[in-house]
Amino acid sequence: MSTKKLWGGRFKAQAETWVDEFGASIGFDQLMADEDLEGSLAHVKMLKKTKILNESDSDQIIAGLENLQQELHEGKLKFTVENEDIHMNLESILTDEIGPVAGKLHTGRSRNDQVATDFHLYVKNRLPKIIEEIKTIQSSLVDLADKNVETVMPGYTHLQHAQPISYGHYLMAYYSMFKRDVERFEFNMKHADISPLGAAALAGTTFPIDRQFTADELGFSSIYTNSLDAVSDRDFALEFLSNASILMMHLSRFCEELSMWVSYEFKYLELSDQYTTGSSIMPQKKNPDMAELIRGKSGRVYGHLLGLLSTMKSLPLAYNKDLQEDKEGTFDTVKTLLPALKVFNGMISTMKVNKDKMYHATINDFSNATELADYLATKGIPFREAHGIVGQLVLKGLEEHRNLQDITMDEFKQISPLIDEDVYPVLQPEVAVARRNSYGGTGFEQVKKQIQQAKLELAENK
Amino acid sequence: MSTKKLWGGRFKAQAETWVDEFGASIGFDQLMADEDLEGSLAHVKMLKKTKILNESDSDQIIAGLENLQQELHEGKLKFTVENEDIHMNLESILTDEIGPVAGKLHTGRSRNDQVATDFHLYVKNRLPKIIEEIKTIQSSLVDLADKNVETVMPGYTHLQHAQPISYGHYLMAYYSMFKRDVERFEFNMKHADISPLGAAALAGTTFPIDRQFTADELGFSSIYTNSLDAVSDRDFALEFLSNASILMMHLSRFCEELSMWVSYEFKYLELSDQYTTGSSIMPQKKNPDMAELIRGKSGRVYGHLLGLLSTMKSLPLAYNKDLQEDKEGTFDTVKTLLPALKVFNGMISTMKVNKDKMYHATINDFSNATELADYLATKGIPFREAHGIVGQLVLKGLEEHRNLQDITMDEFKQISPLIDEDVYPVLQPEVAVARRNSYGGTGFEQVKKQIQQAKLELAENK
Amino acid sequence: MSTKKLWGGRFKAQAETWVDEFGASIGFDQLMADEDLEGSLAHVKMLKKTKILNESDSDQIIAGLENLQQELHEGKLKFTVENEDIHMNLESILTDEIGPVAGKLHTGRSRNDQVATDFHLYVKNRLPKIIEEIKTIQSSLVDLADKNVETVMPGYTHLQHAQPISYGHYLMAYYSMFKRDVERFEFNMKHADISPLGAAALAGTTFPIDRQFTADELGFSSIYTNSLDAVSDRDFALEFLSNASILMMHLSRFCEELSMWVSYEFKYLELSDQYTTGSSIMPQKKNPDMAELIRGKSGRVYGHLLGLLSTMKSLPLAYNKDLQEDKEGTFDTVKTLLPALKVFNGMISTMKVNKDKMYHATINDFSNATELADYLATKGIPFREAHGIVGQLVLKGLEEHRNLQDITMDEFKQISPLIDEDVYPVLQPEVAVARRNSYGGTGFEQVKKQIQQAKLELAENK
Amino acid sequence: MSTKKLWGGRFKAQAETWVDEFGASIGFDQLMADEDLEGSLAHVKMLKKTKILNESDSDQIIAGLENLQQELHEGKLKFTVENEDIHMNLESILTDEIGPVAGKLHTGRSRNDQVATDFHLYVKNRLPKIIEEIKTIQSSLVDLADKNVETVMPGYTHLQHAQPISYGHYLMAYYSMFKRDVERFEFNMKHADISPLGAAALAGTTFPIDRQFTADELGFSSIYTNSLDAVSDRDFALEFLSNASILMMHLSRFCEELSMWVSYEFKYLELSDQYTTGSSIMPQKKNPDMAELIRGKSGRVYGHLLGLLSTMKSLPLAYNKDLQEDKEGTFDTVKTLLPALKVFNGMISTMKVNKDKMYHATINDFSNATELADYLATKGIPFREAHGIVGQLVLKGLEEHRNLQDITMDEFKQISPLIDEDVYPVLQPEVAVARRNSYGGTGFEQVKKQIQQAKLELAENK
Repeated sequence: MSTKKLWGGRFKAQAETWVDEFGASIGFDQLMADEDLEGSLAHVKMLKKTKILNESDSDQIIAGLENLQQELHEGKLKFTVENEDIHMNLESILTDEIGPVAGKLHTGRSRNDQVATDFHLYVKNRLPKIIEEIKTIQSSLVDLADKNVETVMPGYTHLQHAQPISYGHYLMAYYSMFKRDVERFEFNMKHADISPLGAAALAGTTFPIDRQFTADELGFSSIYTNSLDAVSDRDFALEFLSNASILMMHLSRFCEELSMWVSYEFKYLELSDQYTTGSSIMPQKKNPDMAELIRGKSGRVYGHLLGLLSTMKSLPLAYNKDLQEDKEGTFDTVKTLLPALKVFNGMISTMKVNKDKMYHATINDFSNATELADYLATKGIPFREAHGIVGQLVLKGLEEHRNLQDITMDEFKQISPLIDEDVYPVLQPEVAVARRNSYGGTGFEQVKKQIQQAKLELAENK
Repeated sequence: MSTKKLWGGRFKAQAETWVDEFGASIGFDQLMADEDLEGSLAHVKMLKKTKILNESDSDQIIAGLENLQQELHEGKLKFTVENEDIHMNLESILTDEIGPVAGKLHTGRSRNDQVATDFHLYVKNRLPKIIEEIKTIQSSLVDLADKNVETVMPGYTHLQHAQPISYGHYLMAYYSMFKRDVERFEFNMKHADISPLGAAALAGTTFPIDRQFTADELGFSSIYTNSLDAVSDRDFALEFLSNASILMMHLSRFCEELSMWVSYEFKYLELSDQYTTGSSIMPQKKNPDMAELIRGKSGRVYGHLLGLLSTMKSLPLAYNKDLQEDKEGTFDTVKTLLPALKVFNGMISTMKVNKDKMYHATINDFSNATELADYLATKGIPFREAHGIVGQLVLKGLEEHRNLQDITMDEFKQISPLIDEDVYPVLQPEVAVARRNSYGGTGFEQVKKQIQQAKLELAENK
Repeated sequence: MSTKKLWGGRFKAQAETWVDEFGASIGFDQLMADEDLEGSLAHVKMLKKTKILNESDSDQIIAGLENLQQELHEGKLKFTVENEDIHMNLESILTDEIGPVAGKLHTGRSRNDQVATDFHLYVKNRLPKIIEEIKTIQSSLVDLADKNVETVMPGYTHLQHAQPISYGHYLMAYYSMFKRDVERFEFNMKHADISPLGAAALAGTTFPIDRQFTADELGFSSIYTNSLDAVSDRDFALEFLSNASILMMHLSRFCEELSMWVSYEFKYLELSDQYTTGSSIMPQKKNPDMAELIRGKSGRVYGHLLGLLSTMKSLPLAYNKDLQEDKEGTFDTVKTLLPALKVFNGMISTMKVNKDKMYHATINDFSNATELADYLATKGIPFREAHGIVGQLVLKGLEEHRNLQDITMDEFKQISPLIDEDVYPVLQPEVAVARRNSYGGTGFEQVKKQIQQAKLELAENK
Repeated sequence: MSTKKLWGGRFKAQAETWVDEFGASIGFDQLMADEDLEGSLAHVKMLKKTKILNESDSDQIIAGLENLQQELHEGKLKFTVENEDIHMNLESILTDEIGPVAGKLHTGRSRNDQVATDFHLYVKNRLPKIIEEIKTIQSSLVDLADKNVETVMPGYTHLQHAQPISYGHYLMAYYSMFKRDVERFEFNMKHADISPLGAAALAGTTFPIDRQFTADELGFSSIYTNSLDAVSDRDFALEFLSNASILMMHLSRFCEELSMWVSYEFKYLELSDQYTTGSSIMPQKKNPDMAELIRGKSGRVYGHLLGLLSTMKSLPLAYNKDLQEDKEGTFDTVKTLLPALKVFNGMISTMKVNKDKMYHATINDFSNATELADYLATKGIPFREAHGIVGQLVLKGLEEHRNLQDITMDEFKQISPLIDEDVYPVLQPEVAVARRNSYGGTGFEQVKKQIQQAKLELAENK
């Protein structure tokens, strides 16, 4: 295998191995070997079509590259640090296999547009997979919501019981978040799906290349209109990392709640043994490890976003070696997202919902206080005043260990003669939920409508 | 002015002032006073229309709010820390002005959906302004590019002279970046332009409100379909901060180059006195302060993005006080972007381009080495071999202080008998630029096409 | 008031106001007005002592500066954007007041070392205040721990009951974290407490200044040994932001727990009315707003750290305008930390501990499983095997709703004949806690020792 | 090899492999295999010494662990995802090799204190290596400075020529920065060098362990005084990442300058071929790849810091699975720092300094303007006025293409009769440098003193 640097013409001294190792990207960019070969094939077919290379040379190279594809899939290719990156490694192997004609492959192309092409293909190919996993979760949420429209639980603000809600409604809130995640990744495609191939080093090329041809071959929807931009743009990766960060944030919120809801104190949910682990020392433990890990990995993805933003800050045009740092964070984010989404879906699809425990929590928690205030407001007391009256009743109730539904009619009448027996049903949690029937509210009818709408959306997108 | 807490019913002790100050948001959320009044007006009009409030009460409140709008614009409103936030402050002033009927305004509404509405309106209203400023810059770039299509300068990779390019081409690269910025902010609108009003505290309300009516009044294109999501979603702010970060990154790259290009060593550009400053000690200094400041402010905006992502990590639903931290970073980002964009546009519109200096830099820099390699490749030498030959010539040239165009025909013939007199024109910078005529390349024809296309785009978007 | 730029000699055109506003720092650096006057006084006294200025000029300037100090404290000074920053503003006012002799103040000094001096003084002066507030919290924790040595509660890992612990032990864990915070801020002083004054623009000065004199006047412990470093170093600010981030992380952990522990589900703690707030719509709410806000503000401080790191990335020496971005994040961090620490201390000093509720939670939670496994291990069963046996018992107990202490001696004997009556006391929570008497463990004796040691440490540091 | 989960007692269902893979840390924590075995050996020796285990069992385990150490170094150990992490993997292998007695190793210990111990050892062991590499760089800087005390070059602020300086002085500025880096990593040791072993799961243990013994065995200087803190503290890792970020920031500044100074425009430095690379397309290119890569990697390290801060935000005590995310970023930072420092040292030790080019740049750049202003000030003109006069001269000079040293004595006399022939020597760059002889200034004498002091410091620290 040839190890002389392919660009070594003007150099007198060679770097030592440990320097090469520091600079080499082959350790991670071999993840794009498939994309690199795909890109090279498109390029040489274009060189043939435009007659920049003659048929014989082109065909030799094409055959050589196809052979490399097969060897790659069979795990036969060996990469070396001396050849720096995936591009030089593959070209070097190709040269070993088909001889100097391999040197013609790089006509009208540079590693700068080559790596940009590979990286675009990499992101472009992963986006649909991520979107698909998110949609799977959305389906699971809808299924679960469907079974829990009338499951009443405390709704929280500030982690305090606020008002009773439908658990189905809660689940559909996450459905909405994930819907925006899907939209963001779909928008991301717009800027990932642009072909930089043919921008060459930075300025285009003097060869009569056909960029539309290679873009079509590679399935790109559009072409960079400016070659400097083509080789220096990493917006699509930043968008990806930003979208991934927001997605992880959403997951972290659900997982935080999961971790609380399976606790001794809440017991709203029970996770399947398959998604929990034990302790090496405490035999009773059943830890929601997967939920915690997903939550924890949000930091990791945030870090990758921030890292690339920092790296790109104030880089002059066009290509700089700093850009080599774009890939590992992005690769690791893909490697984090795909299993995280799958594990998350597994967790929520197999967990047990403790409806009794949820309902029970809404009885003694004064979460019907708003009902009473609203009731008073409908009787003509300004809301602010009604709010104050009920606040006093809650304070008294807490001291006397009585709930609002335990207040006698006599006591109510002293507050306002307008209060009547119809106040009691209003104070029941399930009635409270049902009556919050404003659009998008937790009222059972509203939740059913959300679910119906979601099913339509998911069906459409298939 | 009333300072008793509007929610104080169940509380026995009051916080001390310094505690109130820590919790209060009035110091910054008064920036949304306009949006808050707008939202309240829409809400009370809806309460009137749906007859939740009677006509007399509604009209009193409407008149009161309209009065507040006027007082606000006249700078007459005084806000206090005791009233915590802009919502409570305005309600408290309204109560002072129109009496207890003001208390009916909050019927079927909570501060949770109220602040979400204000914040959505705030972002929604600023997006078009930011987009407009970016487009102004795009226009300036196109104008400047138009005048510099044939301005030849060194194109850089790794901050080393790579190949000669058109300065117009360089400018159009930034045009493309800003085009993506515009697209991102436009997409941002999709998630900012949703009405949360009517989600109430978290669960909707029992009052027969009309969310479509308020959304229409406020000019929102759509409505949150889930009330929990409506009060806890800050995706639109994160998208905004992420888009702002990428935009600042683009600006930082241009400003980094500006700072180099006005240096003693480059002297490619000269900034107007209006966009530079002097030194308190060194009388000769003319510092590109504005460019440096814009570059430096990229860190600030990155910080805001990261800050909000961290704050939102693992927050349980629905509203938590942590969310109060969403605003200052966003406000500061708007306050950073708008003048930064304006100053940037001023700088590039008034700077002087030193064409001679640019051209001169392309003569002795071996940036025509690719031309020679390509020339050899077209003569049938495999590109890799041609690359090696030229590398050796460069090394020799550096040692003998000779450029490639100084090599004699005899010397060329020794390399390859195929080299002919036609090699010399190829080695001229302007010819090199002109010949990189591949799509999106720096060839003058290509740059003209880019400019023409850009003009169409800018015209369309007006 | 003079508004002509003090450095305007070589400039022909002046910036427009909105450009000046973008570049000006007077909006925030006036926070360092005290430090700036202090620095100027030290400087002029040195100029007098070294006879660089004659006595008469020096005394005029000294008197003028002292007058400015008084006017500053009386709120009489008016700053303008035209004069950019606090340095130029004060010099300009001084000139207005004492005439052209004011121009001699800047002899042998530059704004670059001047701002560095101010900023060092600012941080150096705040560090002791922050340390003091942390120590106040440490004292409160020790007091609280003292009262809760024998308060038994569930210890958590993965938010699952793990083993019963002493609440005093829990509190002392935070004592230890804050101790490290104090150490970090104390170390921070080492790099904040260095005088840059006299470094001038970047290279020192030709005037025979006496840097030791000014350093002594300003109370600096040491002097920068390199002038380029002196004006470009912001390590002390980055250390400060990093230390502040770790401190906020600690606070966020406690506040997260607070927010859970005051919830309906836990009810371990009750916060004073003074540190909670209500809801505008739900009359029963008592929200731990302050705890949430402190938790949320961790993101803000992280953002400032990250912002400054990004800003400083790849800045060439020496001073660049980007460095102006160092201050706002630092100022805001001080403004965040001081009240956050004070509020935190107030919260924990006034909260009510519900000991019964804590103890009760340790009875039915299988958190004595480790006790049983350890018991078996002491009887000679390898720990791993004992762990397995107890795991099976827990599983059975969960299904039959029985706790480990409910297993009969007969049943125990079937597991191992080695088990005896002495197993039952071992399974009691308070015994379990008491017996974890290894160094640093939760055993009551250990907790008492920790408290005693902490009291000594706090006393020493006074 | 046994794959049944060691904690599996209470579990009925097992996770699928892809779930295990998501949760497993063996993929990266095997980097701590050495530390883990070291920790286990210390632990079992303590169990023997305290007679918690009998001699025979202890000796068997000790022999088994020593055998594992050998197998590890011979690369014979095979780890599996089923065994999750390095701790369980090694215990499982040990069980395979020595039978059930291996199960006694975990007596009085948990994975929580075990992983904390490993991680502390990992960081504690790497800190001295990093410090050593930084000191090597400091030595190289001092050597280079020694050779360049009288190398005159332009000093920059705002990337504009400010005042001429000594290149040795510039190098010593970085010496100072790295000195602070060393101090930070040394302080870091204080919090890394604490033994958590014996904290067990979170609460200590009922076994009569001897934590001092294990701490001594492992070379720890102190012991965590609180077991909850011991298992949940990651301050030492955050300090490490923060210190690493500041270090990378310093490196990024030097590398940014390197990248400019080897450019065509500056040509102040030439990097050795060994630390540069070529282009695949442009034969003349010699790119400062290593410098760019180090600069770019600052973003990566920032990202790791931010990632861990985010992950730890608002984590309840004690151990949570999120903490598993602490390691990869830390490991990668070590893997980044060590070669980056080594490569950096190689670069600066082998680069060629172009003294002529540096000196030449100080002749026509008006960087002697401060000299003239200072000269006027010493003649009694207030500095501000002198500054204005020289500003005007610069403006005129720029227009007439004349330098300050070209102004005739007649012209000077018109400005002020006080100006004399002695003005001309003052305007020479080398004189300007020499005369900035204030402490820490660029005057040659000062630079020599700095170098002398640095040599003493480096000698002391050896």
